[in-house]
Amino acid sequence: MPFYTIATPPGVTTKAQRDEMAESIVEMHLRLAGGLRQFVNVMFHEYDPTRFYVGGRHETRVMLDASIRAGRTKEVKTALLTSYSALASRVLGVPEADLLVSVNEIRAENVMEGGHILPEPGDEEEWLRKVMGAAVAAE
Amino acid sequence: MPFYTIATPPGVTTKAQRDEMAESIVEMHLRLAGGLRQFVNVMFHEYDPTRFYVGGRHETRVMLDASIRAGRTKEVKTALLTSYSALASRVLGVPEADLLVSVNEIRAENVMEGGHILPEPGDEEEWLRKVMGAAVAAE
Amino acid sequence: MPFYTIATPPGVTTKAQRDEMAESIVEMHLRLAGGLRQFVNVMFHEYDPTRFYVGGRHETRVMLDASIRAGRTKEVKTALLTSYSALASRVLGVPEADLLVSVNEIRAENVMEGGHILPEPGDEEEWLRKVMGAAVAAE
Repeated sequence: MPFYTIATPPGVTTKAQRDEMAESIVEMHLRLAGGLRQFVNVMFHEYDPTRFYVGGRHETRVMLDASIRAGRTKEVKTALLTSYSALASRVLGVPEADLLVSVNEIRAENVMEGGHILPEPGDEEEWLRKVMGAAVAAE
Repeated sequence: MPFYTIATPPGVTTKAQRDEMAESIVEMHLRLAGGLRQFVNVMFHEYDPTRFYVGGRHETRVMLDASIRAGRTKEVKTALLTSYSALASRVLGVPEADLLVSVNEIRAENVMEGGHILPEPGDEEEWLRKVMGAAVAAE
Repeated sequence: MPFYTIATPPGVTTKAQRDEMAESIVEMHLRLAGGLRQFVNVMFHEYDPTRFYVGGRHETRVMLDASIRAGRTKEVKTALLTSYSALASRVLGVPEADLLVSVNEIRAENVMEGGHILPEPGDEEEWLRKVMGAAVAAE
């Protein structure tokens, strides 16, 4: 965590765009929400636009969902949403009108990554010391 | 938002059924939960039934998930679930016993669509005036 | 519900491994979280590793997400996460360092399965009597 999912119609993103987006998301997430680089997951999906509808008609959208640990303020979440929308629009060349961006909050105690339950936002340093200490002690 | 996802085994739905279901979901959502037609997203997926299990054995199910803004009463959510189940059963010809229907509530402040953070349920009119006013002022 | 989703790169799981994992998840879920065997859903997905990034670089992970009814204690959730991680590591041969395991809590009142809104955790027996009574009365 975080776990970012970006869904587009086929052919909308190039490998260069995905690489840039994945790196930009890491930088943005660490700056606005904190956390650790090695836990920022980004997944790109393609969906079949003949099976997608908006208001009952076929239209295309790009969806970006960020599953993050719960506990950020409304101000941080607004900054994240605004930044995601601007980033996806800039890198992928999609107008903001066609973007659907969401933040899905999951409690840290509900996630285990690399064998460890995640720390609450802000407790990363203490948590790292404990996890690393355990790793050193286990050697 | 809302964002409806319907997952079936391959070949279960025809294009005519998907078209009808997408339109019926829009009508049902606006009637029971309110909101705006142009924000009702519906996505159909197919899953591989050889990779799906119920109780440890292969069975098939149709899953309908509705991600909606949080804040509806239990009564509205029960009406939504009952209506989705009846609708999927009627349009797709799937017995209710084989349906799995869920409502995933997301706070309005956690979603940005078309460049705007979504309003709370019930605040759509005021929000539209503000968004449209901003659009007019920007011209 | 519960609904388990396991996502891996292509070719990581054999049918025998998926069968074993699906059955082991049922046993583990009933033992640790309670509930009914016939409501334990398990879905395996494959994702394209050329479209997945960790910390801005391509790496592979196995993701296991469990959507369960809300209301379990932190202790039960920790036991679930620990057991999922150990199980996936053992059956699939994936090191825990490469696992991302999460519990997604959904309120029972937000889910309908087989035509019935789900009971709260612990109320399964009374619910079954009511649902079965209704089925008998309907005959």
